[in-house]
Amino acid sequence: MMYRAPLRDLSFVLHRLLEEQPLAQCPAHAEYSAELADSVLSESARFAEGVLEPINRSGDAEGAHWSEQGVRAARGFREAYRQFIEGGWPQLRAPAKIGGQGMPLILATAVQETWASANLAFKLCPMLTYGAIHALEITGAPDLKARFLPKMVSGEWTGTMVLTEPQAGSDLALIRTRAVPQGGDLAADEFRLFGQKIFITWGEHDLTENIIHLVLARIDGAPEGVRGISLFLVPKVLVGSDGRLGARNDVRCVSIEHKLGIHASPTCVMAFGEREGATGYLVGEANRGLEYMFIMMNAARLAVGLQGYAVAERAFQQAAEYARGRLQGRSSAGGKGAAPIIQHPDVKRMLLEMKAGTEAMRALTLYAAWQLDLAESHSDPAVRARSQALGDLLIPIVKGWCTEFGVELASTGIQVHGGTGFIEETGAAQWLRDVRITAIYEGTTGIQANDLLGRKLLRDQGAAMMGLLSQIEQELAAGGPEPARSLLKEAHAAVGLLREATAKLLALGAGEADRALAVAVPYLMMCGFVLGGWLMARAAKLVSADAAPAAQQFEAAKLASARAYLLQLLPRALAYARIVAGAADGIAGVDATLI
Amino acid sequence: MMYRAPLRDLSFVLHRLLEEQPLAQCPAHAEYSAELADSVLSESARFAEGVLEPINRSGDAEGAHWSEQGVRAARGFREAYRQFIEGGWPQLRAPAKIGGQGMPLILATAVQETWASANLAFKLCPMLTYGAIHALEITGAPDLKARFLPKMVSGEWTGTMVLTEPQAGSDLALIRTRAVPQGGDLAADEFRLFGQKIFITWGEHDLTENIIHLVLARIDGAPEGVRGISLFLVPKVLVGSDGRLGARNDVRCVSIEHKLGIHASPTCVMAFGEREGATGYLVGEANRGLEYMFIMMNAARLAVGLQGYAVAERAFQQAAEYARGRLQGRSSAGGKGAAPIIQHPDVKRMLLEMKAGTEAMRALTLYAAWQLDLAESHSDPAVRARSQALGDLLIPIVKGWCTEFGVELASTGIQVHGGTGFIEETGAAQWLRDVRITAIYEGTTGIQANDLLGRKLLRDQGAAMMGLLSQIEQELAAGGPEPARSLLKEAHAAVGLLREATAKLLALGAGEADRALAVAVPYLMMCGFVLGGWLMARAAKLVSADAAPAAQQFEAAKLASARAYLLQLLPRALAYARIVAGAADGIAGVDATLI
Repeated sequence: MMYRAPLRDLSFVLHRLLEEQPLAQCPAHAEYSAELADSVLSESARFAEGVLEPINRSGDAEGAHWSEQGVRAARGFREAYRQFIEGGWPQLRAPAKIGGQGMPLILATAVQETWASANLAFKLCPMLTYGAIHALEITGAPDLKARFLPKMVSGEWTGTMVLTEPQAGSDLALIRTRAVPQGGDLAADEFRLFGQKIFITWGEHDLTENIIHLVLARIDGAPEGVRGISLFLVPKVLVGSDGRLGARNDVRCVSIEHKLGIHASPTCVMAFGEREGATGYLVGEANRGLEYMFIMMNAARLAVGLQGYAVAERAFQQAAEYARGRLQGRSSAGGKGAAPIIQHPDVKRMLLEMKAGTEAMRALTLYAAWQLDLAESHSDPAVRARSQALGDLLIPIVKGWCTEFGVELASTGIQVHGGTGFIEETGAAQWLRDVRITAIYEGTTGIQANDLLGRKLLRDQGAAMMGLLSQIEQELAAGGPEPARSLLKEAHAAVGLLREATAKLLALGAGEADRALAVAVPYLMMCGFVLGGWLMARAAKLVSADAAPAAQQFEAAKLASARAYLLQLLPRALAYARIVAGAADGIAGVDATLI
Repeated sequence: MMYRAPLRDLSFVLHRLLEEQPLAQCPAHAEYSAELADSVLSESARFAEGVLEPINRSGDAEGAHWSEQGVRAARGFREAYRQFIEGGWPQLRAPAKIGGQGMPLILATAVQETWASANLAFKLCPMLTYGAIHALEITGAPDLKARFLPKMVSGEWTGTMVLTEPQAGSDLALIRTRAVPQGGDLAADEFRLFGQKIFITWGEHDLTENIIHLVLARIDGAPEGVRGISLFLVPKVLVGSDGRLGARNDVRCVSIEHKLGIHASPTCVMAFGEREGATGYLVGEANRGLEYMFIMMNAARLAVGLQGYAVAERAFQQAAEYARGRLQGRSSAGGKGAAPIIQHPDVKRMLLEMKAGTEAMRALTLYAAWQLDLAESHSDPAVRARSQALGDLLIPIVKGWCTEFGVELASTGIQVHGGTGFIEETGAAQWLRDVRITAIYEGTTGIQANDLLGRKLLRDQGAAMMGLLSQIEQELAAGGPEPARSLLKEAHAAVGLLREATAKLLALGAGEADRALAVAVPYLMMCGFVLGGWLMARAAKLVSADAAPAAQQFEAAKLASARAYLLQLLPRALAYARIVAGAADGIAGVDATLI
């Protein structure tokens, strides 16, 4: 089936649910408007539906091709990337001062959803480029930026994040790649790198003539552990001070992985310095690499969170279309002959979970993006500070919850198809295969929960979280018109549970860290389901108050999915609350030899 | 990593948790003993570990091969099947009177777990053969049985279940395959069949020289719907009255499917009657085909349920081994350098969920099998009747819960591996790909829930279920020694919730069926988690009372997984209870056009 970007819901979330207009009060976004956003979204939908969608299945079947000469992307990807550049998409988010359009993150997030739904493998390439641009822009020296940034912003060159080594995954302290100082054309900032890196997304390809790697490595003699890791810019092809391409750098893709999904996205094993050493330029100060990498990582984590629900959206669309056309069994509504299975209660249940879950994840992710926009650009420093704390708090929740739940919903999409879903040609299985990685890369859910607990809750003793919950409770306690009223109550009760669970986690965290860490993922999932419930209840309130006749179909559907969310999905908060309250000792106290 | 059959836990469940000794009081199982069972299990473990396991990965990578000449199994499968016959495994369960060993279902279930863990694709072939033997033995005419059964029992020929057609999946009323009466060597029982069937597992292969298809078709002039469907035996190669193989029948495998998983199990599109019609023999009476098929189906549903946890067991073993060897991050326990990730609380949490969940599913499945043994063979008709009702009640729960939860746990296994889990060579992804179908074939979870609600709850107004719950409550209320006491309380409280949910579902079912059907899957899942909690609490009680020093490691581990089950997994019952209580209207009442 064909993907159709959910423009109506995106528009609803941006302009009504979140009322993102205050953005226009940010000097950087003075020209932002709902009309502008909708027009950008229409264009991105056109690109996603018309260019990315047609090469999705073929890209999955074909995959990327490795040879000694390099990696060749699957058929159609070069042409799609060319159109991507022509459409000006790489510039969307980059600030105006480096040649970008400087659009707010909330809009960029909505745009990226459409790409991720249409073709997750393709979408990863610009995502990583943007992360590299962002880190370089903030931390790079002026001459480094002058030489590399313009062609990255234009999309003529792509960027990568080069972190993982076989022995160093979640634990980057174990990185061994070496950097040896050289006197070169960027003087003291030039190094030779030696080491092998793995899991490098789009680390090598033929979409562009150059690839700019941002690489974590250890300068000889640097301190052990994470405080001895520096960030280097290592181009695939060396670039002269005049900007011209020179010789190939000593960087090579040794192989690409054979993966469960995202087949068209080459996941590369990269060798740096097999000969004389890969020329690399120090980015920012020595030994601050991990800190810089987190700049990229935070943006990337939000962008991976959206992948979770973007794929769920796609899976939902396909499952709903199948269920409308597949005739099996009698409907209770009567009628002659077999009924479309969408009329069967259990199929409705599954589709409503998919639809409601996806809408809630979209709402929460865009809310987080909006807070990060305010944090970056609002004129009032107090707003900036508050929004930053809120955005930082929400990033691990968005990343963890949307990807874990996205995996579940993609699997539900297969279930709706019955046996047909297990056949690869149907396409339903690809969504599960593709989305599975999102709960792993850019930090597993466990790592997100770790971040949520350690950096976002314990550090401020729950101030940001409790502040958010108070604000939500106030909103929900205000009630609303029927039929939203009872839904607002459900959401309100769940927020109360989350407040208790937060207090419990803070108490656990005040003692042995392990006990809090043992239930940090269930807590994170609870945050996602409860905050999603808040926004779905808000949506129900909005559409309940509404009487615009032209919009009735959308609004009735939104009410149905809000109800489904609050009655079918939100009850999971009860289970998570109990786990947070009671399971920590049983987990943390178990001797690993008994497992 | 290598699979190791969990003989210790199987033995614990069979001989201590369930105390299956009363089986020896069944005349048919007079010779059954724990020693016999353990020795059979050791042999099956040897076969699973030594023969099936080594061809699992290669079978996944290679798949089965289709050509005009037929289907060739993946490398090693013919040889493994030969050893399977030599080992006498096909006879394990078949009654002595037809040349089998007549072992009880509980033992056959434990044995099959080891095959399914080692190689799910292989295990499907004998499973379907056994289903065909069982249906034929009960319903076939003596001359039909004499001609076909012996070589099926010996394993020289395999059997299939041929139900699905493109337009008839869950809804078998829509079957169109035609059967035209002929006067042939089995006189009035000979027919010619015409039609196309899909999703036929091991429908064609080169492991044996003949394949016996049991096919649903409609005799010309039969009533419409399910009451006009008959069952036919259609051999791949015709068999003379002397038992000799004759000409090829008019049956052909047109193609095999390209699937998400179980690649080495050919899923065939079968054409019957492309020329003169496929010769088929009526099995039992005309128009009772669906009823007969349910004989096969019920046995198959239990056998698919066990697949769910068998794959989860395999995924657990692999994830635990990885977690013991993978060094990342510091352990809170201190120590120099990176720690095995199994020491990190969130990894412990995941592994405990996998281990505890698998053990609970194993216990419940074996309990159900044991009830079905008593139902078949006990000397007391009252015990037979009660056990039959209980077994029937549990079949859809075992099938639905163990497969859905098995899918989740296989996905958790990937998560434990981090990025490595997404790489196919690691093998962790295969478990998810393979197990995904178990929640679909032999009736989706929705179909199981439908069966549970309609045939198992509403038909007796909850008598069997409420009876089971009362018996469980009595057992749990009796309490036990510490540290089991608090776990017994948790289980007891959850059983109370299940009693309420059952009453709620019965009330819903008394009104519009759609409202009850809308929450039937959440109810089924709740049954699984709560009944699993009962058996895990019982296990905790047993090992708490125990002081056998030699067994300490196993018993301490069992206590840890019981605690993990009751504190980490059982809380889901709270969510399901709320959904059953409150979500029905929101689902059933939604207009499908709003989805």
